[in-house]
Amino acid sequence: MNQTTSDAALLGLAIDRGAGEPLHAQLAQGLRERILTGRINPGAKLPSSRQFAAELGVSRVTIVTAIDQLVSEGYAEGRHGSGVYVSADLPEEVLQASTVGIMVPNDEPLPAPHPMRPFQPAAPDLELFPHADWSKLMERVWRRPEPALLANADPLGWAPLRSAIAQHLNQWRGISCSAHQIIVTSGVAEAIDLLARAVLKAGDHIYMEEPGYRILRRSLALAGLEPVPVAVDQHGFNIELAQSVAADARAAVITPSRQYPLGMTMPLARRLELIGWARRARALIIEDDYDSEYRYQGRPLPAMMSLEEGADRVVYVGSFSKVMWPSLRLGFMAVPPRLIGDIADVLAASTPRASLVAQPALARFMASGSFAAHIRKMRRLYARRQAALIGAIRSHLDGLLTIEPAPAGMHLIARLSPRLAVRMDDNAASQRAARAKITAMPLSLYYESKPTEQGLVLGYAGFDEDAIDAAAYRLAAALRA
Amino acid sequence: MNQTTSDAALLGLAIDRGAGEPLHAQLAQGLRERILTGRINPGAKLPSSRQFAAELGVSRVTIVTAIDQLVSEGYAEGRHGSGVYVSADLPEEVLQASTVGIMVPNDEPLPAPHPMRPFQPAAPDLELFPHADWSKLMERVWRRPEPALLANADPLGWAPLRSAIAQHLNQWRGISCSAHQIIVTSGVAEAIDLLARAVLKAGDHIYMEEPGYRILRRSLALAGLEPVPVAVDQHGFNIELAQSVAADARAAVITPSRQYPLGMTMPLARRLELIGWARRARALIIEDDYDSEYRYQGRPLPAMMSLEEGADRVVYVGSFSKVMWPSLRLGFMAVPPRLIGDIADVLAASTPRASLVAQPALARFMASGSFAAHIRKMRRLYARRQAALIGAIRSHLDGLLTIEPAPAGMHLIARLSPRLAVRMDDNAASQRAARAKITAMPLSLYYESKPTEQGLVLGYAGFDEDAIDAAAYRLAAALRA
Repeated sequence: MNQTTSDAALLGLAIDRGAGEPLHAQLAQGLRERILTGRINPGAKLPSSRQFAAELGVSRVTIVTAIDQLVSEGYAEGRHGSGVYVSADLPEEVLQASTVGIMVPNDEPLPAPHPMRPFQPAAPDLELFPHADWSKLMERVWRRPEPALLANADPLGWAPLRSAIAQHLNQWRGISCSAHQIIVTSGVAEAIDLLARAVLKAGDHIYMEEPGYRILRRSLALAGLEPVPVAVDQHGFNIELAQSVAADARAAVITPSRQYPLGMTMPLARRLELIGWARRARALIIEDDYDSEYRYQGRPLPAMMSLEEGADRVVYVGSFSKVMWPSLRLGFMAVPPRLIGDIADVLAASTPRASLVAQPALARFMASGSFAAHIRKMRRLYARRQAALIGAIRSHLDGLLTIEPAPAGMHLIARLSPRLAVRMDDNAASQRAARAKITAMPLSLYYESKPTEQGLVLGYAGFDEDAIDAAAYRLAAALRA
Repeated sequence: MNQTTSDAALLGLAIDRGAGEPLHAQLAQGLRERILTGRINPGAKLPSSRQFAAELGVSRVTIVTAIDQLVSEGYAEGRHGSGVYVSADLPEEVLQASTVGIMVPNDEPLPAPHPMRPFQPAAPDLELFPHADWSKLMERVWRRPEPALLANADPLGWAPLRSAIAQHLNQWRGISCSAHQIIVTSGVAEAIDLLARAVLKAGDHIYMEEPGYRILRRSLALAGLEPVPVAVDQHGFNIELAQSVAADARAAVITPSRQYPLGMTMPLARRLELIGWARRARALIIEDDYDSEYRYQGRPLPAMMSLEEGADRVVYVGSFSKVMWPSLRLGFMAVPPRLIGDIADVLAASTPRASLVAQPALARFMASGSFAAHIRKMRRLYARRQAALIGAIRSHLDGLLTIEPAPAGMHLIARLSPRLAVRMDDNAASQRAARAKITAMPLSLYYESKPTEQGLVLGYAGFDEDAIDAAAYRLAAALRA
């Protein structure tokens, strides 16, 4: 019996009936520890279930269940008719892993993602969101989840959320669409990808604004489309100019509410021209309404999709990244009824990318009015922060940067003064800012072709007035150096 | 003044200081309701802020804030120097929408997703999951979320979850990998897509098992790869046969633990042959370990990635759909260190698809041991349900279907008896089952080329023993009819 372990009592195993943890789980854990720490040797025979049961005062079912676990995990193996033995060949890494808790062999700590810093664009305020209310909604949804939440999720999105989004678009953007027309996505990139596969085809030309949203350009290319950059003028995207560049485009992705990143609003007349083109060319207009919630003056123009003429040709794309937060990874699109079937087919043929985890809580958050209330609260806050940014740039960077107020949005564009422009371009300025731990995106980075304007894209929404002032001060020092 | 509204008091507006809701928000809401219900007419002039303030006993700032909201929402408009008027042209749909709560015009209710029904494969039990514990974890994470959770999320995944997954793979599958090698995905489809773009190139041939996982085949095609189906034999995927079909494949995606859907385990010798090929051809092996947690007898073979020879050539792909639930849309892959950089680049160049919402709670759920405990609990439960399915098929469908036990998994394959096979093929049998509200996937559906076997793929994990027995009884009636 030299291979046999000492008996269970000598192994120091103890069962705590008050621990809440099942007895067999306690026993299995105790044995696992002793195997991994070498107190029971590889190849050693374990006491019989009868002996265990007697010495620990638990039922043999408990013992057998615990031993079965160890066997199925590979810690022990049954030899037919001769009892159970500790595995003779435990993988080395199992022995190592067990001693290092949650860390694993040769594992330096993972790098922590750096927090948002001034003046990152499109960064909402993350502290004033009603996180406590939100977390309660999440807890309520998942305490006793509806079966429909756990399986066979509708790839178009959680129905109550689709209804809440349709309602929001009705009230805020004048879009008369039904919940059937709403598709929940993991963001704009997935919306583009779905449209490329369901409505467009690989190689189709698609107009995009120049300057424009860089990640969007990548999404278009990844989706197999051929982006055709079209320079914007003081009224934004110009379909006449676009057609002189390439006459055969099948779609245009544009930001009429507030051109990204320059910020001008497309006038109604030009919107109607664009829709006219789409109707004649049977083309698609993708209306990216990325931050229309944050309008500080005047009344927003109705969304293009809300115009009767456009109802059949415009897909409205939105995101929750700027009202909630970016890592939520939820967005949506409102599509003309004629496209719903094709898009649903593409979704059914792949796996939906939008997680359902937050959708029910978000639906309740919107239906309760908390969502709209948060937008209004942030709207007032961001208006103050825009003023703070303008004040800080004008006081600390006088003669280096010029900046003008905007009626909407989450960022402004600071232009390089002639005095600064002779010393550096916006890329160089951005690099100096980065060395001072400031994010100041160069406007030229938003151009596909040769930049025609220079500037720094400065986001203000996510940073309080002191942080904005301090960052402007550091930026000034960085640019003067 | 015939256009002027009656004064604020007559409008029946009241402010409740105890309501918790800001006063200006209460006032704005009150006015909005009265505008939308027509109690204040379009084009009517609103009382002055002074008059409002006096009659409601609140500050003029409150009034101005409320009015500004209505203006910015388009309910009202200021006419320079002459006060504020209810918009004369409120969009019709706003007026309608407001009266129908969360519903929107012409909106029949959205179809409810049908719950999982016997014998859907890959369906976990959804009732015995510790939802209360899970919802508390979610609530704790999001009550006061770390800033890193809200923005600039690491596209490779939430660091503590990556560590917990690495630890799990160490202890359960003998894979010695560090958290750096773990990439959190939205599922197997995204993992394939990432590998196709980061490691392989469009048009590359990739071996896949025949029969195999249909959605996977779509993922491969969508990712631009050329799937090469290779018939499995009694030991699963055969690399020699594969090379005789197409010698130039750059990758193979396989299910060595338990071939999907047939269920055989690939012996060690054949795993080493496969790895030998990958090393010679500098090719990639994608090890899809889709349900290895559920092994009921014997010791699982170590994962191919855990074999020293394979460490550099094997990517291990897993999912949380079968331990948690499908709609969670979280999976992961463990990749050789040499591939991390390329995959990280592809992720950085697109937008991450895996939602961060559940990742911190899942990390805690795993680190606390609850995840492993739930797997063990389900393992015992599913073993009983497999026995129940075998018993039910043998008692109710004697002479129609034959079924054999399996040492692992969440489904079994019932073969059509000769007596039944002369009357119908598995597609016809599946359609009869569907008419009886039973999901019985035809085995032939898992084939890309001509099916060489007939059968019904019957999932048992997600359904209790009574449901299994009742469904088998209905299936018998459906097949006898």
